[in-house]
Amino acid sequence: MKKHVYLFSEGNKEMRNILGGKGANLAEMTSIGLPVPQGFTVTTECCTDYYESGEKISEEIQSEILEYIKKLEKITGKEFGNPDNPLLVSVRSGSRASMPGMMDTVLNLGINDEVTIGLANLTNNPWFAYDSYRRFIQMFADVVMGYSKASFEKVFEDIKCEKKALTDQDLITQDMKKVVNKYKENYLKVAGTSFPTDPSVQLMEAIKAVFRSWNNERANVYRRLNNIPYLWGTAVNIQEMVYGNMGDTSGSGVAFTRNPATGENKLYGEYLMNSQGEDVVAGIRTPEPISSLASLMPEVYKEFSQHAKKLEDHYRDMQDMEFTIENGKLYMLQTRSGKRTAMAAIKIAIDLYNEGKITKEEAIMKVDPNQLDALLHPSFSPDALKIGKIIGTGLAASPGAATGKIYFTAGDAVKAIEKGEKEIILARLETSPEDIEGMNIAEGILTIRGGMTSHAAVVARGMGTCAVCGCDDLAIDEPSKTLKTKTGEVFNEGDFISLDGTTGHVYKGRLETVETTISGDFKTFMSWVDEVRDLEIRTNADSPNEAKIAKEFGATGIGLCRTEHMFFEETRIETFRKMILSQTEEDREKALAQILPYQQDDFEGIFREMAPYPVIIRYLDPPLHEFLPKELKEIEKIASDLNVSIDVIKSKIEDLKEFNPMMGHRGCRLAITYPEIAKMQTKAVIKAAINVAKEGKIVKPEIMIPLIGDKNELKYITEVVREVANNLIKDSGIKLDYLVGTMIELPRACILAGEIAKHADFFSFGTNDLTQMTYGFSRDDASKFLSDYYKKQIFEFDPFARLDVSGVGALVEIAIAKGKEANPNLEIGICGEHAGEASSIEFCYNQGMNYVSCSPYRVPIAKLAAAQSAIKASKKNN
Amino acid sequence: MKKHVYLFSEGNKEMRNILGGKGANLAEMTSIGLPVPQGFTVTTECCTDYYESGEKISEEIQSEILEYIKKLEKITGKEFGNPDNPLLVSVRSGSRASMPGMMDTVLNLGINDEVTIGLANLTNNPWFAYDSYRRFIQMFADVVMGYSKASFEKVFEDIKCEKKALTDQDLITQDMKKVVNKYKENYLKVAGTSFPTDPSVQLMEAIKAVFRSWNNERANVYRRLNNIPYLWGTAVNIQEMVYGNMGDTSGSGVAFTRNPATGENKLYGEYLMNSQGEDVVAGIRTPEPISSLASLMPEVYKEFSQHAKKLEDHYRDMQDMEFTIENGKLYMLQTRSGKRTAMAAIKIAIDLYNEGKITKEEAIMKVDPNQLDALLHPSFSPDALKIGKIIGTGLAASPGAATGKIYFTAGDAVKAIEKGEKEIILARLETSPEDIEGMNIAEGILTIRGGMTSHAAVVARGMGTCAVCGCDDLAIDEPSKTLKTKTGEVFNEGDFISLDGTTGHVYKGRLETVETTISGDFKTFMSWVDEVRDLEIRTNADSPNEAKIAKEFGATGIGLCRTEHMFFEETRIETFRKMILSQTEEDREKALAQILPYQQDDFEGIFREMAPYPVIIRYLDPPLHEFLPKELKEIEKIASDLNVSIDVIKSKIEDLKEFNPMMGHRGCRLAITYPEIAKMQTKAVIKAAINVAKEGKIVKPEIMIPLIGDKNELKYITEVVREVANNLIKDSGIKLDYLVGTMIELPRACILAGEIAKHADFFSFGTNDLTQMTYGFSRDDASKFLSDYYKKQIFEFDPFARLDVSGVGALVEIAIAKGKEANPNLEIGICGEHAGEASSIEFCYNQGMNYVSCSPYRVPIAKLAAAQSAIKASKKNN
Repeated sequence: MKKHVYLFSEGNKEMRNILGGKGANLAEMTSIGLPVPQGFTVTTECCTDYYESGEKISEEIQSEILEYIKKLEKITGKEFGNPDNPLLVSVRSGSRASMPGMMDTVLNLGINDEVTIGLANLTNNPWFAYDSYRRFIQMFADVVMGYSKASFEKVFEDIKCEKKALTDQDLITQDMKKVVNKYKENYLKVAGTSFPTDPSVQLMEAIKAVFRSWNNERANVYRRLNNIPYLWGTAVNIQEMVYGNMGDTSGSGVAFTRNPATGENKLYGEYLMNSQGEDVVAGIRTPEPISSLASLMPEVYKEFSQHAKKLEDHYRDMQDMEFTIENGKLYMLQTRSGKRTAMAAIKIAIDLYNEGKITKEEAIMKVDPNQLDALLHPSFSPDALKIGKIIGTGLAASPGAATGKIYFTAGDAVKAIEKGEKEIILARLETSPEDIEGMNIAEGILTIRGGMTSHAAVVARGMGTCAVCGCDDLAIDEPSKTLKTKTGEVFNEGDFISLDGTTGHVYKGRLETVETTISGDFKTFMSWVDEVRDLEIRTNADSPNEAKIAKEFGATGIGLCRTEHMFFEETRIETFRKMILSQTEEDREKALAQILPYQQDDFEGIFREMAPYPVIIRYLDPPLHEFLPKELKEIEKIASDLNVSIDVIKSKIEDLKEFNPMMGHRGCRLAITYPEIAKMQTKAVIKAAINVAKEGKIVKPEIMIPLIGDKNELKYITEVVREVANNLIKDSGIKLDYLVGTMIELPRACILAGEIAKHADFFSFGTNDLTQMTYGFSRDDASKFLSDYYKKQIFEFDPFARLDVSGVGALVEIAIAKGKEANPNLEIGICGEHAGEASSIEFCYNQGMNYVSCSPYRVPIAKLAAAQSAIKASKKNN
Repeated sequence: MKKHVYLFSEGNKEMRNILGGKGANLAEMTSIGLPVPQGFTVTTECCTDYYESGEKISEEIQSEILEYIKKLEKITGKEFGNPDNPLLVSVRSGSRASMPGMMDTVLNLGINDEVTIGLANLTNNPWFAYDSYRRFIQMFADVVMGYSKASFEKVFEDIKCEKKALTDQDLITQDMKKVVNKYKENYLKVAGTSFPTDPSVQLMEAIKAVFRSWNNERANVYRRLNNIPYLWGTAVNIQEMVYGNMGDTSGSGVAFTRNPATGENKLYGEYLMNSQGEDVVAGIRTPEPISSLASLMPEVYKEFSQHAKKLEDHYRDMQDMEFTIENGKLYMLQTRSGKRTAMAAIKIAIDLYNEGKITKEEAIMKVDPNQLDALLHPSFSPDALKIGKIIGTGLAASPGAATGKIYFTAGDAVKAIEKGEKEIILARLETSPEDIEGMNIAEGILTIRGGMTSHAAVVARGMGTCAVCGCDDLAIDEPSKTLKTKTGEVFNEGDFISLDGTTGHVYKGRLETVETTISGDFKTFMSWVDEVRDLEIRTNADSPNEAKIAKEFGATGIGLCRTEHMFFEETRIETFRKMILSQTEEDREKALAQILPYQQDDFEGIFREMAPYPVIIRYLDPPLHEFLPKELKEIEKIASDLNVSIDVIKSKIEDLKEFNPMMGHRGCRLAITYPEIAKMQTKAVIKAAINVAKEGKIVKPEIMIPLIGDKNELKYITEVVREVANNLIKDSGIKLDYLVGTMIELPRACILAGEIAKHADFFSFGTNDLTQMTYGFSRDDASKFLSDYYKKQIFEFDPFARLDVSGVGALVEIAIAKGKEANPNLEIGICGEHAGEASSIEFCYNQGMNYVSCSPYRVPIAKLAAAQSAIKASKKNN
């Protein structure tokens, strides 16, 4: 019979796949002798089984759980439901990957009227017993049964009001008893049945609730953003309760072994006396910094510091820990690798290496490539900061600079982005897991309440989004959607503010930002990355300036230079339109001859900037109608410029209209019907290359023909290109090598890659279009239904953001195998959006690509992802 | 060393791949003892070599040819260029497949001034010698050098005029000499160099000309229409000249062993005395019927009849022969299987079987499936065609003949029918789904724009309605409702025109038509086909009437019933639009409930008609905006019906707009966002099936979910469908089996077919969409560039008409292999347009599909193609 439940003493940290991260670490802490309240873990496989059985826990698993309750009773010497010596437990989720705050937790389970009385007698602390009971009723009603917690909160608030109590602690035992009674009444009213008093029933319901929470909307969104597969499921940890709410020598807290915002090597965290863990996170009372515990309870602080060091050394990583003090005794409730900012991640990795704790390779593996994004974005310019008006200061919860329009709910923020807003600041009293989508799209997050470990702070750091938290200089009025300063200044929805996540300052209006450079620790770290990396990183750049930025970030070549952007500039678009509207090849050639010098000039600039690295230039790709005017005024202007009637222009525009432009007359199809365009572009590329080569620079032009689906297309265009190019080179008298290759972006090109490779010097996978064609939906239109796809678990991630390995990836694999077989010298790369996303880069690396080409700001991310891929691959091979 | 040249005596009829059809048959005739002027064949491989070497004949091949000229001199006892005993040759093309009249021929090669004099002396026939010389000069100038023949014809005509000669024969030798001199002068003038007198130079130039003619435009078009690969190349036959122009006991002719129009078993052909072969075909003089040769030259006629019989018996097929009589002696110059009409093909096949010459299988192989099309549609009577005036020619988009009054909108056409008109031609710039009702009642459809796969063409072929598409000889002015020809003739609404969908001609006025049915020989033939065939043939039918026609043609099931067409009928479209414009699920369900009875009624009719065979019903596929109105008037009407503002409707229409509707919110994506639509359709299918089953009929509903790209899509919808269906069946108390399957029409579905097959009872390949996505172009837009693709040899055929075996076919193969491995019971078929095209059907058969599903009128074609595929496969296996 399969084992579904493990005591903490039966597991270890390697078992996170079945025990989840929390369960595996509780087991590990137990085995290295830390003070962990004992318990057991129901495996992640039970979660999968739960969903496969139509959301039921099988009889077999249920009885195994009850059997382990008996074992736990034996270990603790307490008994489930026995008022004389009651065992209370916490029931907590814990999946293979950490998903902080996304799933549910139930504390104080096993309590009922009799147990409460027993607990009161046993501890001689009736206040504590009733506080625990009222906590459990509310949590059970809310988390397990899904009843609104508002009605319970109201009961509690009413009584506090009546008793003029500011905090829970101001209530006396009698008040707490009253709360419990009112809670029970309220439960009966809401549920229609009385509160369940049987601990076993409570337990099974709570376990089911944790399983269910694996599939709640915020967990699904979090998984999608963090590439966590739905199939993994969550484990459930049942652990003996220890009580931080037993009075003034009790408390609970969370702490990091190092500062998660800066990486500073110093214990960092918060705690609250006379509280249970949830209170610290919820931000109801403002917690104390962990350092103050040193004076308050020096022995406990010392012990905790030792445990923290032991854990960090053991895990060889910065740890995020939860602890509870029960009547002066310290218990460790959880440890995990701590989330950290990109800056902190880099500092910690370097420090751990310098402290001799990890190798360089391990240091490289400790930084999430996608997180680097935060370091690569602008900060406020010193000048802007000088004139910026500070309207409040909060905690510098997540570094960076953000400027944007304020929105007061996650929903409003999402709607604004959908309507086309680019820069949004989400301002909330405090955030909750439901806000996750709004937080994800915001440039910055501002909260009025909550500390450095509040939900907003943790999530923002994970996302690399700038955040200022707990800024009580400012007040939010939710109904009227306004933000008010202490001086009475009012900001409405849509007004601009700016956040500095590095100082905690909040500024009025828009502040100018400046680019950041790679220096200090970041520079050191990137040099390590470059030592390990063996995949070439190129960039997608259409201008000398973009090429410059990318080169500074370490790109060694351009993998995609789109030529069409060059035609949109005001001085050129008219000539280009003239070309399109030409009735004869001759007229077309005349117009093209006028465009040639501009295009040549662009290429010269790019070649100069990118020398001595290769530059891939993609020939004209979009359908021609994209270049034509839509407004009547513009049409009239062109008609008068070309000296033809408006109707002629209109009818040409009508002619060029397409039902499905994505699948229309574009890409190489343009060069086939109008080879004169390809000829002009070849002249521009080769003449530019010759000129820059004459300056003594190394120039490596690579001409890329887009949207090839058949070898004959490439053969035809390659012949046109080579004839023009070879003649120009011959006339120039200098030696110049160039390549001609193709984008592989159609399924047919993948299938027939062997034939195509015979005519190509290189393949560059255009996985944007390839994804569109393979799935049969266009990026622009898919947004209408993809949200339903996520909701209904049909898709777990956006295939345009992360390469679909099983479908699109299978085609890429076929294409590489066939292409290399036919042409062993084929240079292979990728230039789609995926080339800047870590998991996709790993796929490309494993497929044996020569390079990935991403946007300039993602070059360091791609480098790190490539280095990590190399490390993983070498591990596998050893 | 590779052999590039074969004497006729070295070859045989099995060598057509390298000798071409003509060369192989000349060799075969030689070997069976027929009087064939001797010669040799330059292989098809030399043609390929010619193109690969940049249009040059390699030194090696040239010297081999000259070596064979020596051999031919030895065989004939004549000498190339020797005036005393000159060898003259013909140089003729001949590819693997017969391409009559598409490529070039040069006769009388080897002649020059001296040879002419020698020939005159030798034959004592100077007229003949000069006639041969002037023929050669003109042919060489025209065919080999590509100079316009008009200037030569003018010289000849001027002299004939001057001499008052009606025919060539009226000129005397002196005149012919003058013609020759003037021709040489003219050649010098046109070419700038004198006429080449070296026979070897003449020969190499002529061979190159034949190779070049393989790539001329008419040959390319012919190959595309007849599925002949460009790569095959043409052979070149060099044969000793015999002369039909030696006087009154000489002549040349062509004849068939049977009548190629009717199949009648009687020698059929024409000849011209004192002529060379080209004169018969050119139609300058009117040739005599072959039967008259019996009285003119009884011995020659007898001998020819014997050769004809011998050839037909030898080849076991009707032969098309060329012959020349030189001074009373008969020579056979060519034999090949004769082209014939569909009717003749069937009669000849049956007769040959009845005569004991071939087996039934061989008889079946003798009829080209695509040719049957002509027998399945009404046609114009031959008399009518003689008097009809052609006013324009477009694409022969859907075969048949139609005559009727023109109407310019679908609405006007419907009104006219309602008023009692019987024969309507719907003339549109292009059609859209809204025109469906008008198209349905029209006798014929004419469009000005659009290709062979435009909406009008596809729908018309599906309906079996005659259509001429993309006829830009004509212009429609929509506001004034007029049709205008290039010559300015104007047709108004209600004027009669006639369409020939088999030729693409548009005629003025009424032309008389005749109907066809499957009877007589055709019926016998189809019964033989059914004996051999083991592939199921279904039909694509959306109405009981289409189902009826298909069943009469022998379909045993519906492979594709599109449900969306049912929503366009006037009584339903309003409710359907209400559904689309609903703001809530509840409103949507209300509207769907109103549509349910209509849809159920449609299905009942179809089930009744198709019983006891299976019916595959495809769920709603097109994007919803296709159902919404475009005209302001209609928008106003809907707004008032729904009691909302016009702006609400307009904004919803705007919301639903898509950039690329083909890749938008359609197919299964609709059922995922609006499962209530799938539920309604399931209710309609199952309730209809239950009702028809209760009538005692056998009903086999198969529900098909379109556009699946991921197993989760199918899993989700299948669960929705099965829940509704199983409940209805349970409630009905009867037993009813049904299948749920999917269309495979996206590349990703092919790649991941193994996963998808686990949730599917059947796969139906939708190769229209699959072709679009694999190539990355839409059929509607591709027509703009495909003509350039054909011209430039990039594509050899239209991948929407004929399945692209190497690209799309490879994906189909992957999908079938993976699908069957995962689900061995999977039923597999195809329902794209390709399912009615012979070569594609053969591919499907060889892939092991269970059925093909084509439009009703193509069912007999599909049957024949399937039978032929079975015969070919069994041959290969034996």
